[in-house]
Amino acid sequence: MSRTIIRGGLVITATEETRADVLVEGEQVAAIAAPTVAEQWVSTADSVIDASGHYVIPGGVDGHTHMQMPFGGTFASDTFETGTRAAAWGGTTTIVDFAIQPVGGSLREGLDAWHAKADGRCAIDYGFHMILSDVGDEALKEMDALVAEGITSFKLFMAYPGVFYSDDGRILRAMQQAADNGALTMMHAENGIAIDVLVQQALAAGRTDPKFHGQVRHPLLEAEATHRAIQLSRVAGAPLYVVHVSAADAVAEITRARDNGLNVFGETCPQYLFLTTDDLARPEFEGAKYVCSTPLRPVEHQADLWQALRTNDLSVVSTDHCPFCFKDQKELGRGDFSKIPNGIPGVENRIDLLHQAVVEGRISRRRWIELACTTPARMFGLHPRKGTIAPGGDADIVIYDPRAEQVLSAETHHMNVDYNAYEGKRITGQVRTVLSRGEVVVDAGTYSGRAGRGRFLPRDTCQYLI
Amino acid sequence: MSRTIIRGGLVITATEETRADVLVEGEQVAAIAAPTVAEQWVSTADSVIDASGHYVIPGGVDGHTHMQMPFGGTFASDTFETGTRAAAWGGTTTIVDFAIQPVGGSLREGLDAWHAKADGRCAIDYGFHMILSDVGDEALKEMDALVAEGITSFKLFMAYPGVFYSDDGRILRAMQQAADNGALTMMHAENGIAIDVLVQQALAAGRTDPKFHGQVRHPLLEAEATHRAIQLSRVAGAPLYVVHVSAADAVAEITRARDNGLNVFGETCPQYLFLTTDDLARPEFEGAKYVCSTPLRPVEHQADLWQALRTNDLSVVSTDHCPFCFKDQKELGRGDFSKIPNGIPGVENRIDLLHQAVVEGRISRRRWIELACTTPARMFGLHPRKGTIAPGGDADIVIYDPRAEQVLSAETHHMNVDYNAYEGKRITGQVRTVLSRGEVVVDAGTYSGRAGRGRFLPRDTCQYLI
Amino acid sequence: MSRTIIRGGLVITATEETRADVLVEGEQVAAIAAPTVAEQWVSTADSVIDASGHYVIPGGVDGHTHMQMPFGGTFASDTFETGTRAAAWGGTTTIVDFAIQPVGGSLREGLDAWHAKADGRCAIDYGFHMILSDVGDEALKEMDALVAEGITSFKLFMAYPGVFYSDDGRILRAMQQAADNGALTMMHAENGIAIDVLVQQALAAGRTDPKFHGQVRHPLLEAEATHRAIQLSRVAGAPLYVVHVSAADAVAEITRARDNGLNVFGETCPQYLFLTTDDLARPEFEGAKYVCSTPLRPVEHQADLWQALRTNDLSVVSTDHCPFCFKDQKELGRGDFSKIPNGIPGVENRIDLLHQAVVEGRISRRRWIELACTTPARMFGLHPRKGTIAPGGDADIVIYDPRAEQVLSAETHHMNVDYNAYEGKRITGQVRTVLSRGEVVVDAGTYSGRAGRGRFLPRDTCQYLI
Amino acid sequence: MSRTIIRGGLVITATEETRADVLVEGEQVAAIAAPTVAEQWVSTADSVIDASGHYVIPGGVDGHTHMQMPFGGTFASDTFETGTRAAAWGGTTTIVDFAIQPVGGSLREGLDAWHAKADGRCAIDYGFHMILSDVGDEALKEMDALVAEGITSFKLFMAYPGVFYSDDGRILRAMQQAADNGALTMMHAENGIAIDVLVQQALAAGRTDPKFHGQVRHPLLEAEATHRAIQLSRVAGAPLYVVHVSAADAVAEITRARDNGLNVFGETCPQYLFLTTDDLARPEFEGAKYVCSTPLRPVEHQADLWQALRTNDLSVVSTDHCPFCFKDQKELGRGDFSKIPNGIPGVENRIDLLHQAVVEGRISRRRWIELACTTPARMFGLHPRKGTIAPGGDADIVIYDPRAEQVLSAETHHMNVDYNAYEGKRITGQVRTVLSRGEVVVDAGTYSGRAGRGRFLPRDTCQYLI
Repeated sequence: MSRTIIRGGLVITATEETRADVLVEGEQVAAIAAPTVAEQWVSTADSVIDASGHYVIPGGVDGHTHMQMPFGGTFASDTFETGTRAAAWGGTTTIVDFAIQPVGGSLREGLDAWHAKADGRCAIDYGFHMILSDVGDEALKEMDALVAEGITSFKLFMAYPGVFYSDDGRILRAMQQAADNGALTMMHAENGIAIDVLVQQALAAGRTDPKFHGQVRHPLLEAEATHRAIQLSRVAGAPLYVVHVSAADAVAEITRARDNGLNVFGETCPQYLFLTTDDLARPEFEGAKYVCSTPLRPVEHQADLWQALRTNDLSVVSTDHCPFCFKDQKELGRGDFSKIPNGIPGVENRIDLLHQAVVEGRISRRRWIELACTTPARMFGLHPRKGTIAPGGDADIVIYDPRAEQVLSAETHHMNVDYNAYEGKRITGQVRTVLSRGEVVVDAGTYSGRAGRGRFLPRDTCQYLI
Repeated sequence: MSRTIIRGGLVITATEETRADVLVEGEQVAAIAAPTVAEQWVSTADSVIDASGHYVIPGGVDGHTHMQMPFGGTFASDTFETGTRAAAWGGTTTIVDFAIQPVGGSLREGLDAWHAKADGRCAIDYGFHMILSDVGDEALKEMDALVAEGITSFKLFMAYPGVFYSDDGRILRAMQQAADNGALTMMHAENGIAIDVLVQQALAAGRTDPKFHGQVRHPLLEAEATHRAIQLSRVAGAPLYVVHVSAADAVAEITRARDNGLNVFGETCPQYLFLTTDDLARPEFEGAKYVCSTPLRPVEHQADLWQALRTNDLSVVSTDHCPFCFKDQKELGRGDFSKIPNGIPGVENRIDLLHQAVVEGRISRRRWIELACTTPARMFGLHPRKGTIAPGGDADIVIYDPRAEQVLSAETHHMNVDYNAYEGKRITGQVRTVLSRGEVVVDAGTYSGRAGRGRFLPRDTCQYLI
Repeated sequence: MSRTIIRGGLVITATEETRADVLVEGEQVAAIAAPTVAEQWVSTADSVIDASGHYVIPGGVDGHTHMQMPFGGTFASDTFETGTRAAAWGGTTTIVDFAIQPVGGSLREGLDAWHAKADGRCAIDYGFHMILSDVGDEALKEMDALVAEGITSFKLFMAYPGVFYSDDGRILRAMQQAADNGALTMMHAENGIAIDVLVQQALAAGRTDPKFHGQVRHPLLEAEATHRAIQLSRVAGAPLYVVHVSAADAVAEITRARDNGLNVFGETCPQYLFLTTDDLARPEFEGAKYVCSTPLRPVEHQADLWQALRTNDLSVVSTDHCPFCFKDQKELGRGDFSKIPNGIPGVENRIDLLHQAVVEGRISRRRWIELACTTPARMFGLHPRKGTIAPGGDADIVIYDPRAEQVLSAETHHMNVDYNAYEGKRITGQVRTVLSRGEVVVDAGTYSGRAGRGRFLPRDTCQYLI
Repeated sequence: MSRTIIRGGLVITATEETRADVLVEGEQVAAIAAPTVAEQWVSTADSVIDASGHYVIPGGVDGHTHMQMPFGGTFASDTFETGTRAAAWGGTTTIVDFAIQPVGGSLREGLDAWHAKADGRCAIDYGFHMILSDVGDEALKEMDALVAEGITSFKLFMAYPGVFYSDDGRILRAMQQAADNGALTMMHAENGIAIDVLVQQALAAGRTDPKFHGQVRHPLLEAEATHRAIQLSRVAGAPLYVVHVSAADAVAEITRARDNGLNVFGETCPQYLFLTTDDLARPEFEGAKYVCSTPLRPVEHQADLWQALRTNDLSVVSTDHCPFCFKDQKELGRGDFSKIPNGIPGVENRIDLLHQAVVEGRISRRRWIELACTTPARMFGLHPRKGTIAPGGDADIVIYDPRAEQVLSAETHHMNVDYNAYEGKRITGQVRTVLSRGEVVVDAGTYSGRAGRGRFLPRDTCQYLI
């Protein structure tokens, strides 16, 4: 069993900042120790990594990605191979992606298909949520079986009628099932039925540019659906996790629920924290690069998002990584914004963007780790194996240089997509070394991992419910 | 032109309590005068009504009735003839009933049908709201025409899928149309899609008694729909009137909206103020008498309703009069609560029940008049013709004895239904004399009106929007 | 007994807009009648006033004035004679001024002094509130006696330590007494103890200009005191009326209280609706003209004030008329803003400024009357004698020309002060004729009243408590 | 340097639950390691503690104690010697006590006096907050000096006029100073001025029993003061820590502040979570044992306190340990509840009572540690030295038996007071072994510590402000 010692860094977890050394044995963390203790291990170590001047942090856990997802007649441009490799480059060592139940088909069918896509291809460990596209008696029964094999969270859509959309009756039934089997319901909370009316009206009026994507997906229609999902979850007696919250009005609904002690959780994404409707309105169809749902919002929403990240009314930052190339993919929507594939790449940039928020004083270092690693791990039943640095946990560890300077760019990123949503943005801080289960997969600009070393992670149920 | 003087009473309107006499000329109020002035009119009057010791109040305006409405294979048991006569007995001189667009049919078709039912049969004046059962391009266009002929309010249902239900897209479109044509959207705010799931589950589990009607129609599903209706109305930029609010949680949503200055209004009904789920749980299927939707609630909701009536977060008390006989009609639901026709009789009892609230100190006398007469008149575009006592307004006037004692009972009521929901309830206060457009139609226990003297009232748009 | 008929106008009260004629007999309204009825009175009338094209409205009730009030070593520049005359010019026919208990003295002593100032000098009717400067056993006992003689409201100050300030214990005791004797507690809600610290710090730092008056009187210190007054009133079980609310944060506290059904009322003043901190910051010491407490606020507070006037979370607009001439009076504070006498003139401009809000669509005509006439009358126990037009009520009536154009100016106003806070402001609408108890005192630019015709008004207790 | 290994337990911190062994070298934690790693250390260890079947948790941090505090002419009955020994018995290894500025005296003087009391007598480590009794220019300057020497938090009283009370001006000035020097303001938030009126009224009316202590200290007067303190802290731009929150209404104010992202923190105490006004009303003057301020509340407040502990709107549980013997001390208030010394013993029982809440499912194990150890350590600038188990931190460690059964009683407790507030309460869970800086001071029912081994802890500033 190989032994690695990481020496001289500042170990940061969600609650501690410790000048300590980390002993890795095989795939796991074996000890965290004062330097004097660690000194004794050096002679017998297989490798010693010098982390002086660096942070030693848990590998990131991105709880929301869509590798090679089918959408609007095309597929997200990152495969599990390219996407997880890019994640590793960016300091993320676990993703939880979404398997999709086909309409008219079974959960098993969808899960098998996703296992087939991911198996043997991932650079890092991965789990699956399941998207419920067709809730019925059979699908509800299958949920129990999936929970038993580690698919413990199920996503429903209040948007996208005719595609992923579930009506409130289906949502209620799925939540009731989750109340019984312990699963977590994840919700895309936008009133898709109302939005579709506005989409049709916009198109009929010749408002076809990408910026109208943001206008028809009204903040109040996100707030409405968020409130509705919360009430349905209360009726069902089940917990709720609202994905990609972008509107201040929706944050307010989650805050209200949490003040009442409900098991309601909110996630946001870097794009809502750093980009705005101004990006959606970029000329020459460039706005299409910024089309995602929920949409980008006017800049004044950002203050509420940041505040909610501090107050824990939003508790997770995931990426909703769902890349489509500008050329040939985003371009499908020229002349009709509703045909632009929805999604933004980001799995590689999340850890850096949030560190930039640390640099700018928006969040503390510990909160950075909590939002990006620990809380998603615990939310999705992966703690303490993932999301922290503790004896017995997986040695998914990032050596992070807090003083390095970099510029985000499609030129240099590793995601398989022809643009970067943050092109040109200067960041202080950069990943130097990444260990995945004890193995160095990225170091000083070199990728040493390989497709297929990442393993499927059966997950426990959400660890926030007492 | 006949001249009547009402002498010696206390004239109560929404804002005044005046010891004054009222001169009626023909169908209208001609003057309100000090006794010394009125004295001069006595010699030339056709009749002088002694109101000493009595209140002189505007005739009631019941903005929510369903005469002979088809529901679940049967019809509400009061015709326009029997129902309006009962209303007159109870001091109500105007109703606004609901014409119904047939699914697959036009608004015109529905309106014509309702005109046919009412024409020549009403004891008092009446108007129509229109129920939109099938929102589409044609129906939306028709709305404008109906507004022009005095049908200025349109009701939508978030409940009753497959019957009256409109999805959020249809609701949004109707609200947008209302934003243009000035109409008021009335909303039955319950999440019918979710409720139907709970209904099916209850029946499948053998929970078939009437009390389960109350359990499946969860207060949070009323609150949810109320919030949703409010957000849709904001997106459309249109006013909203929420009918028959019964859940404290729904009141809270309306309060929140009104605090934000929105044109959102709430109505409740006497059954929610005086009856509870205990009534729904009466043995021997007696609970069926109390089946209506929104349902009766646990008693603790009542305090919030009364408070909201005082704070004006609820601004109207209507009856939602929709009587079905216990025998043969309510009995359709033996063994399956979902087949019980929904509705409670009450058009005759509203003014008395609210006076009882005055006696008990819950509301002031002026607020009584405001809730039962003035605000509904103004809300539905009938003011100042109806809902107050002022020169130029219709002489719809009630002489009310505040000290009379009565017991509500099916034995003595005039509604065409075989039970009274308040059977045995003691009330202080009673209608003595009722004038409808200057003509005495009820006096001292004698009905002197006739079918057909009531006229259709084309209405202006809501008078609360500035 | 003289008989006057006002013909052809639109009679507007808080709830009605009626094309009707008004018969005045002696000092009171005798009848409101349709023109056909009124026609018969013309031949016997002493005078007929043509109101065609005009509004016929109740005379204004200004519940908050300070005629010749001592403050900071000087006196408000309007005497009861000049001030009430100016009020009449502006369509206000009743004021409620503040008698002041001297520190160390009795209520009686203060009241006698104010009676002496007002007696024989007023152009219009007047009542008194009592300022409690020195709450103790004796003063508390005296409160009961004063209530019995029609002084039914008592003002306390949380500001002005060493002058009018009462600590929370004194406030609580006064409120307890009011809970027993039915009086209404009026509160100047600013945390004067904290403000005085900020004043001293500002002066010590050389920040002596008038604009710093606005900065040291922090909006949160108004909100704080408002909340505190509300909680104390809840502990005492007594109603509360918060005077001159200017901060949005304070409005929010009142809204919260009212949503909970508490007997808490809020008043604002025209200066907070039309002026801002920009006026306080006018150069050349001109800002001193705008020094009052609570202070003017940044413009963004105004939207909340207007909204609260619409939602009835603020229910009265008074003037807090307290004029000090710029020359010699305001100038006392050159070099030290804390020495500027606090107060702004306005008793003459209130009705016009609020009509301007009607013209601009901020409030309805009925709400105009309600805010300026009816609610203050009822709040301070003067209804139905004052504040409306109804048989038996005093014939305090204004004939208002809604289309006249005027420009507010010290050149033309009748207040005894050398500046007008709204100098140059264009107003649509103007008072044409004013009747006080049946007598024309202003007509078409001529004043025909006289000092001493106004009578003292013993008042009932607040009429909003059920 | 002695080496101790704690083997086989479940190490619980605020965020981790790890099956790991802990290596202690000298006074500090040297490593946390998997058992296989720790195995290698056994041979060279001075001692090996078997923790199998037990929890290994950080020693408790009690941020609110009053050893031998003078109050009402007597002194709290625990000295620093007896009180800290009792703390150790109960698993608490750090206290932060309150030094008191004498009225008319300096902070230095007060601090010196408290150092003299504590020096050489404590069983465990201790720090000091400073009570500001007399805020003035000198005291404000001294605050900076004290912060520099590790007294980084200052307590102010809105209660106890004439004793510790500061008016709002003094509070504002102290907060402004804290905004500059980084100190944390702790607030006893009750409106003492109003309470004193109610106290005098109660006594005058013959209501002298202990239960009236609870009635006069009205929950709304706690909520009021809490809101006031929050607003003052906003004006000053300083953080706020509200001590011993007991009223649901006060929790609501803190929740509101935290939703707005303010640096406002709340503490509650076991007595408010487990005792009620029923205890205050115990016959035969037994209620005196339960007299403390803020007072115990009716049982319905407890649900809000527990919920706030879960939502983190309350973030610390301290004891406010302030024991007075029933005999001779509490008895000073026979016939006059206001003379009963205020305070309840509890420093020994906190960890157990909160574990009972874990057993009952109210909070999770991690939250138990967070509330009792980690958050107070971080709040008061002691982290990571105290409040967690991490390399480099002090080896303040408790071996806790989660299955032991005990009954709380004055018979068996070690606090120097003749009653236990929880007498007879059954608890699941018990401290077995306590290490203070690496030294076993309690083990299996034997105390092996000594007076004077505890050291004074200079503290950093609050670690929750970013």
